[in-house]
Amino acid sequence: MHALHCANCGTAYSPFELQGVSACCQQPLIADYSLRRPLSRAKGIDQADSSMWRYGALLPLLDEANKVSLGEGFTPVLALPQLAARYGLRSLILKDEGQNPTGSFKARGLSMALSKAKELGVRGCIIPTAGNAGVAMAAYCARGGLSATVVMPRHTPEAFKEECYWYGAQVELVDGLINDCAARVRQLNAGGELLDISTLKEPYRLEGKKTMGYEIAEQLNWELPDVLLYPAGGGTGLIGIWKAFQEMKKLGWLAPETKLPRMVAVQAENCCPLLETYLGHQVNCHSYNGRPTLANGLAVPRPLGEPLMLEVLRESNGTVVAISEEGMLEGMRELGNHEGLFVAPEGAAVWMAARRLLADGWLHADERILLLNTGSGQKYMSNVAGRAWA
Amino acid sequence: MHALHCANCGTAYSPFELQGVSACCQQPLIADYSLRRPLSRAKGIDQADSSMWRYGALLPLLDEANKVSLGEGFTPVLALPQLAARYGLRSLILKDEGQNPTGSFKARGLSMALSKAKELGVRGCIIPTAGNAGVAMAAYCARGGLSATVVMPRHTPEAFKEECYWYGAQVELVDGLINDCAARVRQLNAGGELLDISTLKEPYRLEGKKTMGYEIAEQLNWELPDVLLYPAGGGTGLIGIWKAFQEMKKLGWLAPETKLPRMVAVQAENCCPLLETYLGHQVNCHSYNGRPTLANGLAVPRPLGEPLMLEVLRESNGTVVAISEEGMLEGMRELGNHEGLFVAPEGAAVWMAARRLLADGWLHADERILLLNTGSGQKYMSNVAGRAWA
Repeated sequence: MHALHCANCGTAYSPFELQGVSACCQQPLIADYSLRRPLSRAKGIDQADSSMWRYGALLPLLDEANKVSLGEGFTPVLALPQLAARYGLRSLILKDEGQNPTGSFKARGLSMALSKAKELGVRGCIIPTAGNAGVAMAAYCARGGLSATVVMPRHTPEAFKEECYWYGAQVELVDGLINDCAARVRQLNAGGELLDISTLKEPYRLEGKKTMGYEIAEQLNWELPDVLLYPAGGGTGLIGIWKAFQEMKKLGWLAPETKLPRMVAVQAENCCPLLETYLGHQVNCHSYNGRPTLANGLAVPRPLGEPLMLEVLRESNGTVVAISEEGMLEGMRELGNHEGLFVAPEGAAVWMAARRLLADGWLHADERILLLNTGSGQKYMSNVAGRAWA
Repeated sequence: MHALHCANCGTAYSPFELQGVSACCQQPLIADYSLRRPLSRAKGIDQADSSMWRYGALLPLLDEANKVSLGEGFTPVLALPQLAARYGLRSLILKDEGQNPTGSFKARGLSMALSKAKELGVRGCIIPTAGNAGVAMAAYCARGGLSATVVMPRHTPEAFKEECYWYGAQVELVDGLINDCAARVRQLNAGGELLDISTLKEPYRLEGKKTMGYEIAEQLNWELPDVLLYPAGGGTGLIGIWKAFQEMKKLGWLAPETKLPRMVAVQAENCCPLLETYLGHQVNCHSYNGRPTLANGLAVPRPLGEPLMLEVLRESNGTVVAISEEGMLEGMRELGNHEGLFVAPEGAAVWMAARRLLADGWLHADERILLLNTGSGQKYMSNVAGRAWA
């Protein structure tokens, strides 16, 4: 059983009703699990389930019958021996979220959110999106029998729009970035008939995303990497993985002395609100303006989760890095040519951030480095076609 | 340890040397496993490995160090409750191979073939392809550090070509279908410097593909479906799954009384050589001419494995069905709208074949039906864009 509390002031909210952001502070609601008795790893993980739902004991769904699943999660962690050799690294690994349903990590959050939406009697959902989350929402709505309205920037690659059509979703195009889409969502859903599935505006996408943290620990035999690099747009993944690490410490699944990884948030130079705040160039992201980027998922100029992301960076002694458009293409070429991975520009940015931090001395060649690739390169084809050579 | 024999006459060949088709009959070589002592399911399956390599005990790799893997296989088997309800079916399930690395089932065969190629000292590979296999070969060559030459029809969607470029492969375009590409491969590789990875012209892609059969059995708790529908172009999957069923019977992993599924080969009306032979309209496919189809993987007019496919159909009391282009689009819409699955046209054809066989009375509503979707719809975007509505 779980409870919900406001991320800012801690006020409690009922998990038996539909919830958005907290009424008190307009901030994200966070789920807590109060376990009456200790839960061992052996009992807490369903070994027969090779999806993220193997961690169902730590997820908020009450009735299995409401599960809306396409087999998401439990994606492979791959060693990158050729790149490691090229840069003299001791241990370089990548978790490949491109092998999820709908080709991205968004499947996790949307599977969880749509399952809870179904459980709470929701009939239709709406979402502002930079691309991947909208595709995933459209898929899981179709899977769960709910209606879907997806609001995305007009410049989003056609592949994202088309895939939504095939799921029977209604697609609205907006001139601007995801924050402009959010404004359009408020307009379209003024009457509140639809559940707004915006990042961190409902509490359950975060719960789906946190399963990446559980998987990383289990797949690495409960020994975490020294540094974890993550592409941070809305930031749910970064926040979710960190939440999973905390939960596993509390559960005793990670030894108390386990050193948690330094968490690195990777952004695009074209849209790096978190970096600007982190460097003290602005108080917060509330009036930041970004430009489009090849990494559509990083085009999030005003993430609601900024305070939570900054907390993760502070607690973990992490940092923020921003990568250029040309840098992302270089990273894609390197991962493709040397490791056989066709990653999203977001994933390429993460690798380039590791290279940057190695050159700066912030990262050391003998540290265990984990890169998170959030999606397959396929959907970005129209962004990157013709750029496979420098 | 495994041995190799000619599929036609049984002549033995050495598994310690590089092999193509049999010298005796120019037919595929098939791997046999002679197990000195009984191998239980518990001992034969590596439960800690959630890729196809969990069945490594039944695969031909001698040294783990040569494994070329991107985490392929162990893809989900999903219930399709909404479509089942719509058509009054008792049990309708789909194995989703779109969640593989490079987005298709081809990952399995190429992971296995490239691992063996590496083990046998090969430096570069060449392949004629309708699309997916070429992409997978390019990826696994990059992963294994081998050079890749991919020969595909000029009309193949751009996404397939582009992905090959990102893996650093050399791509040759040919006017025609895959058999014309095969002729070009013979020309380009007249000196034999490269290993020809054509379907069934080397013995190991088949071994990778057979893991689908092992997974189906394990994931269904060792109770096989009544009918299994599979999109058959080159036919390695159909032949491989059937081979796995036979192996599991011999191993005792399937009870001796287990009834094996009736196997249905699904083709495109535009290119259905197997159907024509099956119906007696031609002696064999040797001079069949096909047309391109939305389902690029089914545009294989003269499959080398035709005799083996016909054997599977005969032994299993199966049949062949061909689906129209419009039918595939209808199937894609239905799977997208009602189950949240954006499948390849090949996968949609399989669903439409089930509908056809139900209408014909060949399939019964109370039978357990398994559909195999071979890939994600993403790479076919340029084939199907704008067709999401009837």
